[in-house]
Amino acid sequence: MVTTERAMPAGEGGRRPARYAASPGMLTDRYELTMYSSFVEDGSVDNHSVFEAFARRLPTGRRYGMLAGLGRLIPQIVGFGFDDAELRYLLDTGAITPKAADRLANFSFSGDITAYPEGEIYVPGSPVLTAEGPLGECLLLETLVLSVLNHDTAVASAAARMVTAASGRPIIEMGTRRTHEQAAIAATRAAYLAGFASTSNLAGGHIHEIPTVGTVAHAFILAHESERAAFASQVAALGPGTTLLVDTYDIEHGIRTAVEVAGPDLGAIRIDSGDLDIESRRARTLLDELGATNTRIVVTSDLDEYVITALGAAPIDGYGVGTRVVTGSGHPTAGMVYKLVAVADRPGADAPVRPVAKKASGKGSAGGRKTAYRRDGDEFFTLTGKVPSDATAVQVPVIRAGQVVHDPTLDDIRAHARRAIDALPAEARDVADGAPFTTATEEDHR
Amino acid sequence: MVTTERAMPAGEGGRRPARYAASPGMLTDRYELTMYSSFVEDGSVDNHSVFEAFARRLPTGRRYGMLAGLGRLIPQIVGFGFDDAELRYLLDTGAITPKAADRLANFSFSGDITAYPEGEIYVPGSPVLTAEGPLGECLLLETLVLSVLNHDTAVASAAARMVTAASGRPIIEMGTRRTHEQAAIAATRAAYLAGFASTSNLAGGHIHEIPTVGTVAHAFILAHESERAAFASQVAALGPGTTLLVDTYDIEHGIRTAVEVAGPDLGAIRIDSGDLDIESRRARTLLDELGATNTRIVVTSDLDEYVITALGAAPIDGYGVGTRVVTGSGHPTAGMVYKLVAVADRPGADAPVRPVAKKASGKGSAGGRKTAYRRDGDEFFTLTGKVPSDATAVQVPVIRAGQVVHDPTLDDIRAHARRAIDALPAEARDVADGAPFTTATEEDHR
Repeated sequence: MVTTERAMPAGEGGRRPARYAASPGMLTDRYELTMYSSFVEDGSVDNHSVFEAFARRLPTGRRYGMLAGLGRLIPQIVGFGFDDAELRYLLDTGAITPKAADRLANFSFSGDITAYPEGEIYVPGSPVLTAEGPLGECLLLETLVLSVLNHDTAVASAAARMVTAASGRPIIEMGTRRTHEQAAIAATRAAYLAGFASTSNLAGGHIHEIPTVGTVAHAFILAHESERAAFASQVAALGPGTTLLVDTYDIEHGIRTAVEVAGPDLGAIRIDSGDLDIESRRARTLLDELGATNTRIVVTSDLDEYVITALGAAPIDGYGVGTRVVTGSGHPTAGMVYKLVAVADRPGADAPVRPVAKKASGKGSAGGRKTAYRRDGDEFFTLTGKVPSDATAVQVPVIRAGQVVHDPTLDDIRAHARRAIDALPAEARDVADGAPFTTATEEDHR
Repeated sequence: MVTTERAMPAGEGGRRPARYAASPGMLTDRYELTMYSSFVEDGSVDNHSVFEAFARRLPTGRRYGMLAGLGRLIPQIVGFGFDDAELRYLLDTGAITPKAADRLANFSFSGDITAYPEGEIYVPGSPVLTAEGPLGECLLLETLVLSVLNHDTAVASAAARMVTAASGRPIIEMGTRRTHEQAAIAATRAAYLAGFASTSNLAGGHIHEIPTVGTVAHAFILAHESERAAFASQVAALGPGTTLLVDTYDIEHGIRTAVEVAGPDLGAIRIDSGDLDIESRRARTLLDELGATNTRIVVTSDLDEYVITALGAAPIDGYGVGTRVVTGSGHPTAGMVYKLVAVADRPGADAPVRPVAKKASGKGSAGGRKTAYRRDGDEFFTLTGKVPSDATAVQVPVIRAGQVVHDPTLDDIRAHARRAIDALPAEARDVADGAPFTTATEEDHR
């Protein structure tokens, strides 16, 4: 485990170290623990069970979703547990019984996880993650599974649409300042796997090996006695291949000064305000007149998939997207749920399970363990466990008996996402609002 | 520093430990480091400077915002820096120069932070946080300051409106599964300081000493052979004072079974589906008929400030709010910016500073260091540094010469927030869409 060498001061009245890191088991709703305790007390905690994560619907207008978060989730499932201080806290606050505490002290997930690969497309009803094993163990994972998948999937689903809208032009993820500082690291990972080219986030770059980019903010220009002095300082430090920010005072004047200072080999200019369609066209004409024909134009400022689409004909070489990607472009959470779908009366994978599902109004779901597959662009599932010979399976084994059996690199995941988007029907790639291109439906071919 | 005893397995192709914790300095956009390097190289890095965080506008329809995040931000400012591996990474990727790396190896914020107290109300233009000190140091804080304040403030601003809508009835924060697992801990802290009564989040409860609540999910009912068996198991483990979830199959039948199993001293029932106004009225009548006159009714299911307001006349004793509070009720980020507002040509607090501000279209801001105050419910600022004798100052010193001088407990902050909401004009507490009740404007009384 890598930790920083720098000790952190206490916060909040000095009572708690600021960088206390909760064990994965604590990233959980209290009711998971009270249910676990009841199962321990009534003897059902080890009964065989099947839980399933799925989305009942996509965010309004979305034609598909892109699953993300699995690579962050797996280590937290394998590491799921509690330290001694946490167990004491749970006992002291009545969240668990002493008998439950004894079991939790040695908690280790021993079951199976099956899932859609990260970067895969999902639609309403897709069984994106299945947990199978002892009832108490699978139950406890609920909150953590949903936190990770709902956040990362919301970002990747928005990012995938932006990547499609950009038609091959690179997008920089730069939303760190618009989201929680740790969520930002996960968000940049999700955007990158969905096809973003790079990130502004240094921790994300370091941890996930994502290319980082960034040159200067307006503060840099303002801190110098003139725009010219600021450009000269930047070119001296970073070379003429850098990106100069030209809109602090007047864009045309800024571009002229930039080319005077850096020469015609100036790498790029960035425009962060105004009508980006008009300004980018003016900038291209001026740069070409000044001989800076290879200088690229990068634009930023409240971009999303709709704005990027609208700018499709402008002479823009790259986009920076912040707020809208880290907040899921209007849909900051994917809305997945994690439900018990089958349970047995005794432990063991050979125990006969009965399908279960809540019946109350508006929130019904299908019981039984689902095997998903695709045929001719549509998605189906079956409760038989068998993928028909004319169809393609979607799920992969991720954890078997507590051991990780699926651990792709982020580049592998990114390549999978690329293939998944390329396989979408053309209308699904349209950023305009529409219905899901398909819905996972049951086929009974027993 | 407290860390868990449990080692985490490698993730992402085995290359990186899953619980690697980035130093606060890495929670930063790359351009802060490239600018810092340029300032080191051109000799201006220690020039005296003033930066300011503020919101140009509130989210559409909001009449006020509630500042949150300061208690999480302060320790990360004091601990801001980089470890050796991180500095090597920054050098290897060209984000910093060797001369900058030498300085960053011993980085420690030596300046001043002045801010609105956490839980305070803010409006467009309010200078909620001011950093003053060496240009390079203050600049580097930008991304981290904004990440923490934008996230936590978005949650607290939504939560404050929900608390007002609930008119004294307690609200449980239960949105952990709808946001990033670490953001969830910050979100529950923000909701609590804004007046929520409790949380489902165990890590939040443990770290921030917030009361935790939660009993069972539908999975618990479904895992038993009958609803009656589930209720009996829960009452056996948690006593009749528990909250029974009555809507898995049929609400009326569920309530009758609940009272039969737990007796008339049943603590509460929870309804998580259907028309909550109708169902809560039916439930109250039935509970009273069954003699369970003290049994409380708690409702959950997609609540927000608007739904809570609409349910105002229903016989509901408590609300659980999830998705909508952790995602800022439609506005998941507060949209604050952090701008250089004054800079000197040499180091030292006595160096004369010149006000600076970006001039380009649509994103202008006011230069100069602002002192904020309130008079008759309106907010003003002055560049003179002097609060008029008939007005009340808003800002407090938080860090002076790198030392923390403001460290209230979370309960102190919560009490401050309560007073701040109580002091709002009545129309500002209306949840209906409206304009900000005031805007911070400059008074020149020199």
